[in-house]
Amino acid sequence: MPEKMKAVVKPEAAPGAELTLVDIPEPGPGEALVKVRATSICGTDVHIYEWDPWAASRIKPPMIFGHEFAGEVVELGEGTTTLKAGDYVSAETHVVCGVCHQCRSGNSHICKDVSIIGVDRPGVFAEYVTIPECNAWRNPPDLPPDIASVQEPFGNAVHTALSTELVAKTVLVTGCGPIGLMAIGIAKAAGASLVIATEVVPYRLELARRIGAHLVLNPKTTDATTEIRTFTNGLGVDVLLEMSGNPSAIHEGFSVLKRGGFAALLGLPSRPMEFDLANEIIFKGATVYGVTGRKVWQTWYQTRALLSSGAVDVGPIITHRLPLEEFVQGMELMARGECGKVVLSL
Amino acid sequence: MPEKMKAVVKPEAAPGAELTLVDIPEPGPGEALVKVRATSICGTDVHIYEWDPWAASRIKPPMIFGHEFAGEVVELGEGTTTLKAGDYVSAETHVVCGVCHQCRSGNSHICKDVSIIGVDRPGVFAEYVTIPECNAWRNPPDLPPDIASVQEPFGNAVHTALSTELVAKTVLVTGCGPIGLMAIGIAKAAGASLVIATEVVPYRLELARRIGAHLVLNPKTTDATTEIRTFTNGLGVDVLLEMSGNPSAIHEGFSVLKRGGFAALLGLPSRPMEFDLANEIIFKGATVYGVTGRKVWQTWYQTRALLSSGAVDVGPIITHRLPLEEFVQGMELMARGECGKVVLSL
Amino acid sequence: MPEKMKAVVKPEAAPGAELTLVDIPEPGPGEALVKVRATSICGTDVHIYEWDPWAASRIKPPMIFGHEFAGEVVELGEGTTTLKAGDYVSAETHVVCGVCHQCRSGNSHICKDVSIIGVDRPGVFAEYVTIPECNAWRNPPDLPPDIASVQEPFGNAVHTALSTELVAKTVLVTGCGPIGLMAIGIAKAAGASLVIATEVVPYRLELARRIGAHLVLNPKTTDATTEIRTFTNGLGVDVLLEMSGNPSAIHEGFSVLKRGGFAALLGLPSRPMEFDLANEIIFKGATVYGVTGRKVWQTWYQTRALLSSGAVDVGPIITHRLPLEEFVQGMELMARGECGKVVLSL
Amino acid sequence: MPEKMKAVVKPEAAPGAELTLVDIPEPGPGEALVKVRATSICGTDVHIYEWDPWAASRIKPPMIFGHEFAGEVVELGEGTTTLKAGDYVSAETHVVCGVCHQCRSGNSHICKDVSIIGVDRPGVFAEYVTIPECNAWRNPPDLPPDIASVQEPFGNAVHTALSTELVAKTVLVTGCGPIGLMAIGIAKAAGASLVIATEVVPYRLELARRIGAHLVLNPKTTDATTEIRTFTNGLGVDVLLEMSGNPSAIHEGFSVLKRGGFAALLGLPSRPMEFDLANEIIFKGATVYGVTGRKVWQTWYQTRALLSSGAVDVGPIITHRLPLEEFVQGMELMARGECGKVVLSL
Repeated sequence: MPEKMKAVVKPEAAPGAELTLVDIPEPGPGEALVKVRATSICGTDVHIYEWDPWAASRIKPPMIFGHEFAGEVVELGEGTTTLKAGDYVSAETHVVCGVCHQCRSGNSHICKDVSIIGVDRPGVFAEYVTIPECNAWRNPPDLPPDIASVQEPFGNAVHTALSTELVAKTVLVTGCGPIGLMAIGIAKAAGASLVIATEVVPYRLELARRIGAHLVLNPKTTDATTEIRTFTNGLGVDVLLEMSGNPSAIHEGFSVLKRGGFAALLGLPSRPMEFDLANEIIFKGATVYGVTGRKVWQTWYQTRALLSSGAVDVGPIITHRLPLEEFVQGMELMARGECGKVVLSL
Repeated sequence: MPEKMKAVVKPEAAPGAELTLVDIPEPGPGEALVKVRATSICGTDVHIYEWDPWAASRIKPPMIFGHEFAGEVVELGEGTTTLKAGDYVSAETHVVCGVCHQCRSGNSHICKDVSIIGVDRPGVFAEYVTIPECNAWRNPPDLPPDIASVQEPFGNAVHTALSTELVAKTVLVTGCGPIGLMAIGIAKAAGASLVIATEVVPYRLELARRIGAHLVLNPKTTDATTEIRTFTNGLGVDVLLEMSGNPSAIHEGFSVLKRGGFAALLGLPSRPMEFDLANEIIFKGATVYGVTGRKVWQTWYQTRALLSSGAVDVGPIITHRLPLEEFVQGMELMARGECGKVVLSL
Repeated sequence: MPEKMKAVVKPEAAPGAELTLVDIPEPGPGEALVKVRATSICGTDVHIYEWDPWAASRIKPPMIFGHEFAGEVVELGEGTTTLKAGDYVSAETHVVCGVCHQCRSGNSHICKDVSIIGVDRPGVFAEYVTIPECNAWRNPPDLPPDIASVQEPFGNAVHTALSTELVAKTVLVTGCGPIGLMAIGIAKAAGASLVIATEVVPYRLELARRIGAHLVLNPKTTDATTEIRTFTNGLGVDVLLEMSGNPSAIHEGFSVLKRGGFAALLGLPSRPMEFDLANEIIFKGATVYGVTGRKVWQTWYQTRALLSSGAVDVGPIITHRLPLEEFVQGMELMARGECGKVVLSL
Repeated sequence: MPEKMKAVVKPEAAPGAELTLVDIPEPGPGEALVKVRATSICGTDVHIYEWDPWAASRIKPPMIFGHEFAGEVVELGEGTTTLKAGDYVSAETHVVCGVCHQCRSGNSHICKDVSIIGVDRPGVFAEYVTIPECNAWRNPPDLPPDIASVQEPFGNAVHTALSTELVAKTVLVTGCGPIGLMAIGIAKAAGASLVIATEVVPYRLELARRIGAHLVLNPKTTDATTEIRTFTNGLGVDVLLEMSGNPSAIHEGFSVLKRGGFAALLGLPSRPMEFDLANEIIFKGATVYGVTGRKVWQTWYQTRALLSSGAVDVGPIITHRLPLEEFVQGMELMARGECGKVVLSL
């Protein structure tokens, strides 16, 4: 076993990151050391790379970031019981306290003392990473590492899309970043009778069409809300899956949500916004659900079932595969929105 | 049978109303003519009386207003089948189309073509009113008319409070107008282990205490959110029942809503407001439900069960009983918030 | 308009039926007269035809039977408001009281005073039938009459299959009569990751395969429960859709239902049977739901969405199309189980 | 610390048990040693004492039995992190695997590899017991040990009663053993508008009345089903909580369950029984839920809220308090049904 490993490190409180050699970590009690085979870039990683206000307030450099991955267990810390060397795993990235009210009532995804891999503890843009054994998710041996890596964001899409029943429903996905694209595929697999997507970046509009959205609209060039009302016989959509965090998209989404509809919100507006509770929620009799992370482990079981059964094909959503060394190119693609998912291989 | 009746009429598009003599209406096909025994004043009636922007945009004078009532069926129109003269009834005040998607899928309370008694068609501040037979709700003979009249707003409180399970939960009611006061009683009857109420009008703070809220706070004089967090061991409340429509109360409510909590919104902010979707809903993993009207007829069955079993005593909430002729005094009491429910007798 | 029409009549309390000429009925108040274009044979019709103990206890001859159909409105009774001549309709076959507790709380499918078309009132194996206007369901003009006719049993399958979430779940359908076959298609459309079917009639086993069940087993020739456990990695199935009413199939179904699983029961055992509540339900922590009829109108909306979107193709399930005159052949095919759905055309 | 402790031991595969001195156990890794302050007798303990067929098939003597208790942590094994000496605890008695599908999807109460304290591993009828740290539930310091001990069966009652909403509902509890009695109190606290109880032992009928059931019936001396129908205006009850396991009671319960009702089954019939799925479940459109153990930790949180808020007073249900030495008398009281809960003190 070598002593040093390559890692993408945020060296100081400033934009950028560098590929450098660091010590390979040792697994503590209850931890596993995993050799990373594939890792993928999340929007959060771009925020860290670009050092936006959120990153500046949360990240403590120097820090290895990245949290989506798949790899092989190579060493186990004291007191571990369920994993063994050679296990092929991905991980739930929320490391939770296990004892708070939320953790003890089936809602560890909103643990009040959560620590996130690649955000609050060293991440996976590296040859090796240590994770708590109880965060590991054993992958089927035949699942390619790039697909295994994107299970984490796929899980966000699953949590969002399956937070209500979609079968025989009409669904609007606002925002076609990687998770929005995944949500389109999941909604179709879940039996939605009509899946509409809105997005403004042409590259992603095209991807949304390829993934199979029945109607793809660019609100910058079309009167999207009128089109959606027409397409739904004036009724509006049964379900809104909000993946953009963009205030205009949010208002458009609620405007075409039918009376009695359901909205799942995953996209994060960067600041408070004007919102018309009376007309956007109350008079509508709407139900709104805020989505954070993944339900542990229900979401992962659903993810496995959707991927293993072939119900959703994330292949077309992984648009770029780069070696870890070219992470800067991946960050730039993500920043421009000219990609689906970008996977870095090791 | 006389030909004329007393009625409170909004004579023209301006503040105020007058008690006058008008023709007794005749029941059309499928309608019942009801002799009103008791009617009660809703906040909506005050808006109509004061002629606020909403009223100006919706009401077409001359119009008899008022919609909460109890009375006796005295005549039936053609084609009626379920009522008979002498039946003692109240009514669901939303007259619905019966054929829209919402009506045909168990959600007639959000019918897209709703017409409301006392808003869109002649109301009950009168000796007689006609209502569609299918809107009538037969009252137990021993239910006093004043209680029977307030079943309609009680139903709003039931719809709000019982939109999630309350047993063994901590509940915050923001806003102690009549419906908020009723919600306090319902939450206690439903097994909530802690019911906290916030309100700014001293008269209503005192009523909230009498109804039995465990903790009653005036955010104008106390740091209510800190108190609530302390009282809930730092966890926050499981459930928020928002009955005020006041932006400060709404933010306070969401601020103390626990992660994974549930918020039912009945109060209507008078205009769009700043709202922090990321922190108030999404990171919380909160569920939010917008409440309009009453579920027909589930809410009415629940109302009957809660009142008949004695689980909730609305007696103390009816603070004023006046003859119809003194409706102006009732309007003024309501406008000042120095009352619970005001009932007008005939 | 002619005065007489052809109809399949059960003339007396004995097996058999005859095609005869009877008076065309006149629509009463609130009723529509519909010219039947297509009708299909239900298992219930076979019971009536064969005059089994249930039929003998319920049917009052002479009686036209049959209840699944599609046709055109040709005349309207007094007081109708929503239909017009020329409307292309099918019908919810449960004529309900509208005022009982169940009807008034969103559960009219279990109305305590239900009257069923073709069972308690004249049926649709005839050129014309009268139905209450409020039971009519307007069909899309491009829906072929045979497909429109089978919406009623399809609705049973929808009610059963969608009584729990199926996406990413493993599902067992026990019994592949027409409704079981439809349930296979619906489960696949709803995103079930694995759909297993059991059946003993070879013709229907073959149909189950064509509809797309992932695994089709004949418990007479295979150890079905062992196979199912193997196929589900020892876990058992998430969901049981029981469509056979056969005690062996029921026990097999519960035996492979996973701990915490959900069972929807539509098939009717012909008499009480031995059942092991402790092991089949209680220790399992299972949830069991009894299915009667269709949720009105939710099920019909879901049916429309599933058929119009092409999510389920019932084409292959309609195996026989006969003129009304050859109804005897249809009854015999059904009795032998050597068919999917049999449609009679007029 | 002494080396020996008193314990009630089943010494061999035969009826009876003996109080004897045994070695105090040592806590293994992840375990806590607890000094027992109070323990209570479950029906399961009586089965073990009497050595019924179930006990003979499951228990491996010599074995200390008993599983309901409260006590003080006195020593901690290696690797424990959340408890400390002096903590006042009770315990979830199902020791689960933590890695099976059920455990990993929020259903550890139906873990497929469960090991139960006092059944599969040494129990609490002793001065000391070792439990896994992660099974410990910290009690409020002011909760008396006898009340703290009965939280475990109270949790069964909570799991059963709160498996559906009870507010404004009519509820039938069949069987008034300790858990049935608790369910009566919980149903009332949860806002049930009518709570009916059936039982055949006079002592327990009297207790059911004291706990506050609105109607208490002895099916041996009354036509209970007719009475219940009368009391519910012919509708039947909304909810059945089956706590007896007795076939007659089960049939009576389903017979008066309303169409669309909900039945939670906790009582275990000792063998398969005749059951009429068609009329008892399917035509009714009923939902049936099998109850095993407690939802971890939701049930315990609910238990705490119900007891701490004073919503349910279990005081009257604890009818006998004996020293551990008199366990035989406790077993006999339980066998005769002439008691509520029997607590043994140390």
